[in-house]
Amino acid sequence: MTIVVFVKNTAQITSRRCFSSRLHGLSRTGESLSSRSPHISSSASATWSSRTTGLRFMSQGTASRSSAGRRSCSRGALALSGAAAVTAAAAFTGFLANINHLQRAEMATLVPRAVEEDQEEGDILARCRGFMSPPVTDVDVLQQRKGEMCTRMEMLIMETQAEFCKALEAVDGGTFKVDRWERKEGGGGISCVMQDGKVFEKAGVNVSVVFGNLTEEAAKQMRSRGKVLKGKDGKLPFCAMGVSSVIHPKNPHIPTVHFNYRYFEIEEEDGSKQWWFGGGTDLTPIYVNKEDAFHFHNTLKEACDKHHSQYYADFKKWCDRYFYVRHRGETRGIGGIFFDDLDGPSQEEAFGFVKSCARTVVPCYLPIVHKHLRDPFTAEEKDWQQVRRGRYVEFNLVYDRGVKFGLATPGSRIESILMSLPLTARWEYMHEPALGTREAEMLEVLRNPKEWL
Amino acid sequence: MTIVVFVKNTAQITSRRCFSSRLHGLSRTGESLSSRSPHISSSASATWSSRTTGLRFMSQGTASRSSAGRRSCSRGALALSGAAAVTAAAAFTGFLANINHLQRAEMATLVPRAVEEDQEEGDILARCRGFMSPPVTDVDVLQQRKGEMCTRMEMLIMETQAEFCKALEAVDGGTFKVDRWERKEGGGGISCVMQDGKVFEKAGVNVSVVFGNLTEEAAKQMRSRGKVLKGKDGKLPFCAMGVSSVIHPKNPHIPTVHFNYRYFEIEEEDGSKQWWFGGGTDLTPIYVNKEDAFHFHNTLKEACDKHHSQYYADFKKWCDRYFYVRHRGETRGIGGIFFDDLDGPSQEEAFGFVKSCARTVVPCYLPIVHKHLRDPFTAEEKDWQQVRRGRYVEFNLVYDRGVKFGLATPGSRIESILMSLPLTARWEYMHEPALGTREAEMLEVLRNPKEWL
Repeated sequence: MTIVVFVKNTAQITSRRCFSSRLHGLSRTGESLSSRSPHISSSASATWSSRTTGLRFMSQGTASRSSAGRRSCSRGALALSGAAAVTAAAAFTGFLANINHLQRAEMATLVPRAVEEDQEEGDILARCRGFMSPPVTDVDVLQQRKGEMCTRMEMLIMETQAEFCKALEAVDGGTFKVDRWERKEGGGGISCVMQDGKVFEKAGVNVSVVFGNLTEEAAKQMRSRGKVLKGKDGKLPFCAMGVSSVIHPKNPHIPTVHFNYRYFEIEEEDGSKQWWFGGGTDLTPIYVNKEDAFHFHNTLKEACDKHHSQYYADFKKWCDRYFYVRHRGETRGIGGIFFDDLDGPSQEEAFGFVKSCARTVVPCYLPIVHKHLRDPFTAEEKDWQQVRRGRYVEFNLVYDRGVKFGLATPGSRIESILMSLPLTARWEYMHEPALGTREAEMLEVLRNPKEWL
Repeated sequence: MTIVVFVKNTAQITSRRCFSSRLHGLSRTGESLSSRSPHISSSASATWSSRTTGLRFMSQGTASRSSAGRRSCSRGALALSGAAAVTAAAAFTGFLANINHLQRAEMATLVPRAVEEDQEEGDILARCRGFMSPPVTDVDVLQQRKGEMCTRMEMLIMETQAEFCKALEAVDGGTFKVDRWERKEGGGGISCVMQDGKVFEKAGVNVSVVFGNLTEEAAKQMRSRGKVLKGKDGKLPFCAMGVSSVIHPKNPHIPTVHFNYRYFEIEEEDGSKQWWFGGGTDLTPIYVNKEDAFHFHNTLKEACDKHHSQYYADFKKWCDRYFYVRHRGETRGIGGIFFDDLDGPSQEEAFGFVKSCARTVVPCYLPIVHKHLRDPFTAEEKDWQQVRRGRYVEFNLVYDRGVKFGLATPGSRIESILMSLPLTARWEYMHEPALGTREAEMLEVLRNPKEWL
């Protein structure tokens, strides 16, 4: 049994008023337990889950904020269940915050094990308490369809958003602005953005859950990807959802991170469903740091290895291929993992893998943030960061499939799509670092992707 | 007879050594005359011109630079022929430089008439002396094919580049970096970039002249634009050239300007040629200034009206349609003119129109630069400029056909294509100016394009 209490400041409670009122009647203090099943059951079709459910709890308590604007340590605790939660929370908010340079081995040790472990999916309402906002789908609907993959994935992406945002707020001292938005055609999203914080120049964590009928163009695109779809009266009801995030820190020694985990489901004529998962996590440092790269890739590999021995190798390659700025002949960063159209070995196993990946985001990135939190930097290093930010913009606007799809889709929420762009960027004509510099070292790695493990 | 002498500084002569040596043997002092024909002769086929040729001359004299790093006035004189040249040169470098706020009527008066007037095309070698670099095509070849449209257009774009660069150098005090580059498949270009100057954050003026055989994909694209092309043995020799420029000033009260004038020629099986011109000039202010907008559009309209009474109205609409950031529901700026596939009424008349447009670039823009040169600005105004710069990047990377084509074309010179991007840009999440502000006024204009005349 684990109880992790979060203390929220008043401002947040105000900005999330509708959420509080929706959850009215629920206890405001932490109370729950989790009993865990060691294995994920395999079921390709979506059915009501009768398993005993675990639970994570975050209270909607009253404000507590230090005069310096930083939250108390408890505010920054990670949303974890299991015995390691308190340890991990302490590690992130207390221990790590005071250490600039950790050795790789130490970093590995500090990855909270609880995040890595499987976690039962508990009571919907109770889990919702920890979210940045009520989920997109009505809580009652989620409860009714608790066992369906759409619900389980929506809960996972909401949890991932909350975990990550809270970990970032804890290290920055700032607060995410939470925007709920609706999509006229069905569904909506929750965008969390922190801008011009102490540590983060721009941090965006976005959840979207959209549904409706596939447009003819989208159906065509699906077919071009080898998906044979049979609609009923030409209609193909679909549901798509995901969590995505890009974090641009101020300090050029703290890398930019991006992750995205998504699920797609289409109902065919006979009522059967086609579904697949996609996603990945990748790192874009401004300077090469082998320890960071090892920690990042190794954490991802450990998550992958629990599910398939080939996943890391395959998805690492896929990541290098995907995040490639072709006109520059450079990868965007040092990669990580990337996958799409994952529809096996079973829906349960695929979801299990995605869950492992989503829960690896915080332990992949936060130790690196803490490690470099107080690294000094020069104006020249900041300039180089700005030039790299420019390349990031180039990738996102020219190649990123999600951005391109979003910009071309009527009714998209542009601000959520483009929140991945940095606050500031720079384009210098003919910028080419001098040989032997750390900038040239970074370029070399981007031009010739490395194996980091 | 007109003699306009330019004094170059040593640095420039050094960086343009190959040009000087190529022109070795030519007199280094101004000497020439021009006798002008009042009408442009109409000839659809390219023939050797037997007309008496006019000539503009700029000497390759030695350095003369003030201690403050600014060129002497003579350095900044515009490359003009005709009686108004000296007046115009004085106006731009002397008179205008000392005046901050000109009234619209005054600005209109100050447009140097000589630029507006037709100008004979004189001796190739002599004209080349005023360029930023030797032309892409060998001077001997240009001389042999003097009357052909490819030559006349290459001379025009080189002249436009030189005129514009020199006008900008005069107002900034900085010097353009001149890069010659070659295209493996045929042709090359000359990129002139001034970065982080006193007035200009980034100023790029690029000429490119490429030739070879059309790739199958390019031919397909042509066909999709309604061009029926018959190649010889499947080959379609083509020649494409243009001058393009984007100028991003530092002061948010000086607008960004862009122009591009281009010519395309394809030789068919029977030796006949298909050709067309394209281009335009458009303004992207950060704040609305009706006087500037009137001056800019009116100068363009005057250039258009000399050729066709419908050109300005049609090409103004086309410009608003083309420079549209669809996902934002905003135009990029306040427009100007834009046209493509212009293949009539005759090649000579079309070229005449393009020449008028190209010669209108300096009088369109420079008076506005001078007018706002010393306008004070706040940090908030600079921020708004940076946000607008972000939108500029969005248009250029997501929609601009030239950029998209360039990035997708193997062997393109990326630095020349992307020199249009500003030195710095900013993306603020959910940036929305407060009602009644000057920022909101700008947005309103971008959302609902206006008639400025």
